[in-house]
Amino acid sequence: MSHIQRPSGRAADALRPVVISRHFTKHAEGSVLIEFGDTRVICTASIEDKVPGFLKGKGQGWLTAEYGMLPRSTHTRMDREAAKGKQSGRTQEIQRLIGRSLRAAFDLNAFGERTLHLDCDVIQADGGTRTAAISGAMVAAFDAFSKLVANGVIAQVPLKNFVAAVSVGVYQGLPVLDLDYPEDSSCDTDMNVVMTDAGHFIEVQGTAEGVAFDRGTMNQLLDLAESGINDLIDLQKQVLGLLEN
Amino acid sequence: MSHIQRPSGRAADALRPVVISRHFTKHAEGSVLIEFGDTRVICTASIEDKVPGFLKGKGQGWLTAEYGMLPRSTHTRMDREAAKGKQSGRTQEIQRLIGRSLRAAFDLNAFGERTLHLDCDVIQADGGTRTAAISGAMVAAFDAFSKLVANGVIAQVPLKNFVAAVSVGVYQGLPVLDLDYPEDSSCDTDMNVVMTDAGHFIEVQGTAEGVAFDRGTMNQLLDLAESGINDLIDLQKQVLGLLEN
Amino acid sequence: MSHIQRPSGRAADALRPVVISRHFTKHAEGSVLIEFGDTRVICTASIEDKVPGFLKGKGQGWLTAEYGMLPRSTHTRMDREAAKGKQSGRTQEIQRLIGRSLRAAFDLNAFGERTLHLDCDVIQADGGTRTAAISGAMVAAFDAFSKLVANGVIAQVPLKNFVAAVSVGVYQGLPVLDLDYPEDSSCDTDMNVVMTDAGHFIEVQGTAEGVAFDRGTMNQLLDLAESGINDLIDLQKQVLGLLEN
Amino acid sequence: MSHIQRPSGRAADALRPVVISRHFTKHAEGSVLIEFGDTRVICTASIEDKVPGFLKGKGQGWLTAEYGMLPRSTHTRMDREAAKGKQSGRTQEIQRLIGRSLRAAFDLNAFGERTLHLDCDVIQADGGTRTAAISGAMVAAFDAFSKLVANGVIAQVPLKNFVAAVSVGVYQGLPVLDLDYPEDSSCDTDMNVVMTDAGHFIEVQGTAEGVAFDRGTMNQLLDLAESGINDLIDLQKQVLGLLEN
Amino acid sequence: MSHIQRPSGRAADALRPVVISRHFTKHAEGSVLIEFGDTRVICTASIEDKVPGFLKGKGQGWLTAEYGMLPRSTHTRMDREAAKGKQSGRTQEIQRLIGRSLRAAFDLNAFGERTLHLDCDVIQADGGTRTAAISGAMVAAFDAFSKLVANGVIAQVPLKNFVAAVSVGVYQGLPVLDLDYPEDSSCDTDMNVVMTDAGHFIEVQGTAEGVAFDRGTMNQLLDLAESGINDLIDLQKQVLGLLEN
Amino acid sequence: MSHIQRPSGRAADALRPVVISRHFTKHAEGSVLIEFGDTRVICTASIEDKVPGFLKGKGQGWLTAEYGMLPRSTHTRMDREAAKGKQSGRTQEIQRLIGRSLRAAFDLNAFGERTLHLDCDVIQADGGTRTAAISGAMVAAFDAFSKLVANGVIAQVPLKNFVAAVSVGVYQGLPVLDLDYPEDSSCDTDMNVVMTDAGHFIEVQGTAEGVAFDRGTMNQLLDLAESGINDLIDLQKQVLGLLEN
Repeated sequence: MSHIQRPSGRAADALRPVVISRHFTKHAEGSVLIEFGDTRVICTASIEDKVPGFLKGKGQGWLTAEYGMLPRSTHTRMDREAAKGKQSGRTQEIQRLIGRSLRAAFDLNAFGERTLHLDCDVIQADGGTRTAAISGAMVAAFDAFSKLVANGVIAQVPLKNFVAAVSVGVYQGLPVLDLDYPEDSSCDTDMNVVMTDAGHFIEVQGTAEGVAFDRGTMNQLLDLAESGINDLIDLQKQVLGLLEN
Repeated sequence: MSHIQRPSGRAADALRPVVISRHFTKHAEGSVLIEFGDTRVICTASIEDKVPGFLKGKGQGWLTAEYGMLPRSTHTRMDREAAKGKQSGRTQEIQRLIGRSLRAAFDLNAFGERTLHLDCDVIQADGGTRTAAISGAMVAAFDAFSKLVANGVIAQVPLKNFVAAVSVGVYQGLPVLDLDYPEDSSCDTDMNVVMTDAGHFIEVQGTAEGVAFDRGTMNQLLDLAESGINDLIDLQKQVLGLLEN
Repeated sequence: MSHIQRPSGRAADALRPVVISRHFTKHAEGSVLIEFGDTRVICTASIEDKVPGFLKGKGQGWLTAEYGMLPRSTHTRMDREAAKGKQSGRTQEIQRLIGRSLRAAFDLNAFGERTLHLDCDVIQADGGTRTAAISGAMVAAFDAFSKLVANGVIAQVPLKNFVAAVSVGVYQGLPVLDLDYPEDSSCDTDMNVVMTDAGHFIEVQGTAEGVAFDRGTMNQLLDLAESGINDLIDLQKQVLGLLEN
Repeated sequence: MSHIQRPSGRAADALRPVVISRHFTKHAEGSVLIEFGDTRVICTASIEDKVPGFLKGKGQGWLTAEYGMLPRSTHTRMDREAAKGKQSGRTQEIQRLIGRSLRAAFDLNAFGERTLHLDCDVIQADGGTRTAAISGAMVAAFDAFSKLVANGVIAQVPLKNFVAAVSVGVYQGLPVLDLDYPEDSSCDTDMNVVMTDAGHFIEVQGTAEGVAFDRGTMNQLLDLAESGINDLIDLQKQVLGLLEN
Repeated sequence: MSHIQRPSGRAADALRPVVISRHFTKHAEGSVLIEFGDTRVICTASIEDKVPGFLKGKGQGWLTAEYGMLPRSTHTRMDREAAKGKQSGRTQEIQRLIGRSLRAAFDLNAFGERTLHLDCDVIQADGGTRTAAISGAMVAAFDAFSKLVANGVIAQVPLKNFVAAVSVGVYQGLPVLDLDYPEDSSCDTDMNVVMTDAGHFIEVQGTAEGVAFDRGTMNQLLDLAESGINDLIDLQKQVLGLLEN
Repeated sequence: MSHIQRPSGRAADALRPVVISRHFTKHAEGSVLIEFGDTRVICTASIEDKVPGFLKGKGQGWLTAEYGMLPRSTHTRMDREAAKGKQSGRTQEIQRLIGRSLRAAFDLNAFGERTLHLDCDVIQADGGTRTAAISGAMVAAFDAFSKLVANGVIAQVPLKNFVAAVSVGVYQGLPVLDLDYPEDSSCDTDMNVVMTDAGHFIEVQGTAEGVAFDRGTMNQLLDLAESGINDLIDLQKQVLGLLEN
């Protein structure tokens, strides 16, 4: 399709090596280390036996997410948000996205008045931290709900759909899948896509950083995303033992 | 396509009445009241003769946006963000979107070391405040740059593209243009689209609030958005006297 | 009395043109745009069916006010208080003054355990924003209570007194009524006076910015204020249809 | 004038016993403990060899004030403002008043690019803390400037006027001078007055807590205040050795 | 042991003159001014008839402490923490230490669901403010509990041990007791020790500011501390009338 | 010495298995994962080419530390400090301790006007996180300085002493080394000790949580700490290749 070479040498439609390690830390009900190449995110799922005030007494559960980066997960050290006393707009935007995406994966009416807290903490960043976070949080949440099942609290995991996310973008004119940092920092268009295992969209967030993009490009990007997300969901199911690999 | 009736009685592809009033307040270099039906947003553009620290000495300008809602712009009163001491995640997400969208409209290298501040304050909300804000800020910014031209500071308005925004969504199964509050609060899918007068995308932000959406629906939504944005940009040009109406 | 010419050409004892527009926005129980010349303030009154903690169970209502300025309501852009994360001392001082003034207008024991929130937001500033806010909030509050009456919640508007406010000051030695910005920013003495329709004082806040003022001057200023407030209260009653104009 | 008995048994026009102790702490350039009866306030004056940013390079000085109350200076313990992370509106209002009052006492152009910081900290409160603070800060500031004179930094204390403050109010219908806490917490009208030794007003801040007050009452209150402030200024001059007692 | 002369001329094992004045302010249940030489700290003890949320319904009391310094208690003026909107790490460290120390002095199970608030405010600092605070708070707390006894609320003061604190350090190679500011600001090792009247340790906090210290030095420092604390506890008991002097 | 069995079955003087993994993340100049049994802390060292304002132009470097815990590093989820908008007193106390300890390890005058930032983030907590953080930060800092040496920026690592830390305490009457969470949460006395490879103390912080401790116990605890720290420093040197294992 083009003579453009990706910095990593990957094909335009190739994901980075993805590794999902379950039971990464011992206290959380679900705990996953997910790696998209050099991007590494710890995703924990914690179950709390109460819901926020606005849901009390409605017999319904809640799911919420928080996101953070270790100060030196990045090329140059960032200020620690806890020390600055506020989360950046970017952080809030990402954690709202993670929350919305995972609320689409589970049935909030099927696990009682409980809150599932997802904490996604980036320990090493190389592009795509929010899509890795969503994809890893899916597995951590599944594990946490499985624990409730094992403990006899609920009858089954309140699954609606598997959900995963990936970034796509236009790098030097070439539509590519799963941008790493060198691509992300110089691309024209950056799009984060969240889809279900039924191939439907949960979120599409595309931004033209430089040149605006046309409808044809958008279609190419969505094709790439759909293919990548298929593979990610297969991997999620494999690590959970729901699919043979 | 359906027997669904929009609450407003509008056709699926109809914008609400849009009014753009220039020179709404007297101090700002650009000041616009934009109305999308009952949604009313004051957009002011202020020029400051300096740039943020990270740009000092680079000979380049900056454009940034802030967004707010008056506490009783909404159906029930919201807490005042200044009194709470922090802007919500939603507010930050919207003002970042406005800023990115307008930075795509103007050439930051063509107006010296100056900052254009866009303030978008909602005085009455009825759905679509962020898209009204972007569409109104475009005119306010144009007026502010025109003032710099009139004062001999720069030779011409540093325009790259006209930019406008509109929401689209799926209301009771029907893809519709420019959601008002009754539609917005009960729709399945909500998408905000920012486009240029060349018909290219600056931002696409789609969220499935309920049922995930498929590719066919996405295409219908993008068609609606493109048509609505065309009309909005024509109106922007008319009120600026750049196009006869 | 002197050869001093006011910048606006007004007589020493002349108010600026005052316009009070009711039903300015649609959601609030009371909503007023008040204009003192080029000073324009949106005053909304919102009724909430609960009281702050310190009043719970006492069978009494509460009335409180908040004040804000749009960032570019002023000659040069001010920082947005919501973005800075705190309200200035000036803002707090003004909103406390508005609250005290309006609590003197209504009987807090006569509308049940409800809170009336007054939000006064300046969209254009040209001096006298706090006095315009008080005078406009009076009408917005009256409208909100009238709505409770119309809905059969209370038997009548819990009115104690009509209340209005105006500034007076010494401009180049001349005592004048209703200072606009050019006068306000260069006057020696600035006094804000809040009075009832019985001609009694609710608040008197006088400050010598430059030369201290003597008792004679104070008396002249209070005379001016009394006359201006009489006219303002007449106008309030006229726009509410309680007095023929 | 009436059969009303003040809780303290004082005559209507009597100040509480006032004690001004200089050199109360050892580090500050000026340090005063002022007592208005059981109200005790530590006022320190600190000189810093720079001015705030907005005054840099203008060859002018600045004077600013801060106010605080120890948590248990009051009848029931108040939350510590440093622990809550913000100063209340009342605190800000008071420290702005102290600052304005003292800026009227000294010539800001006569002590170079320096800042005089006044810190007024209430260690025991029994009404009238802000007026005690102003009256004590006058002496502390005088001492601090005298130190600059003694060190040869300036030729003389940059005095414009002596300034003192007192509260007056209407207690059970009776106009009284220098309200203590039992009076303050139940009075109808409360007025704080700041005057110079020339008998001119710097600040008049009157509030009707209950019944609005008329012009006649106001005149009685101003008479009381003038008399009390005369006595306070005499005492200030005596403790400074400028007047024999 | 050495030819080193302490700046104050004191012997290596000599405390500064210590004065404990009870009933220093009138509102608090316990109120003490404690002086370690020129270090002066107001310690008040306030009793509140409720406990923090985590203790509700457990039939147990709580004791907590806060610490502050007046801005000009120090050689050069410090920023006011209430104005900055946060307490420094040092402040928090000290108030946690005071709280832990005093919780070791009293039986939290013996005064019902009440909270004892200790407020330690430094009005003049010359080294050793935290040890003076602990030693003074002991007396203020004892007085507050005695008031509960006098009021018949509890049968006896819920005393476990008397507690006092002192600093020790190595000044120019010489182990010394009760460092004043000139010593504190130039010493190699600084240790704060809190002990009971049984001679046991509650807290030992030693820090090598310059040269690390060996075991022999540590033993010398602990000997000095033990001796000083003995004297302080005797004084506490004397001022409370529990020991003849 | 006793029949007390530690929950882990360890001997009273036994450390948990300690693992120090260098180069744990790729961006930081020094990056270490340190494990004290189930306690796991990521320690990164970042070099910045400037110093804080108070050191500018003094030709000296600075070293500072920050500490955090992932929300679900603990048994039950803690609130995220970045979301709450402030660091707890405990967090600030710990990061101040880490900073002081490491400033004792390196010569601040020997690496130019640079700042070494240490970030210690706990990903799994099982007691002793602060001592693990100090011991791991030592290695991360050494690696970061080595990188400066490798790049020819400085001639050698500005090492004063190796530094490590360990906790000791009294568990059911038995003095033990390196408390894990079950011991830490029920022990009477808890002491954190920081020492150099010369066997000297940098910090000793002992707290009696329950029963106060006597001098004999303190001596036993310091003996245990000295032995444990010796082993930790040997391990630090081994992983850095400075000592054969």
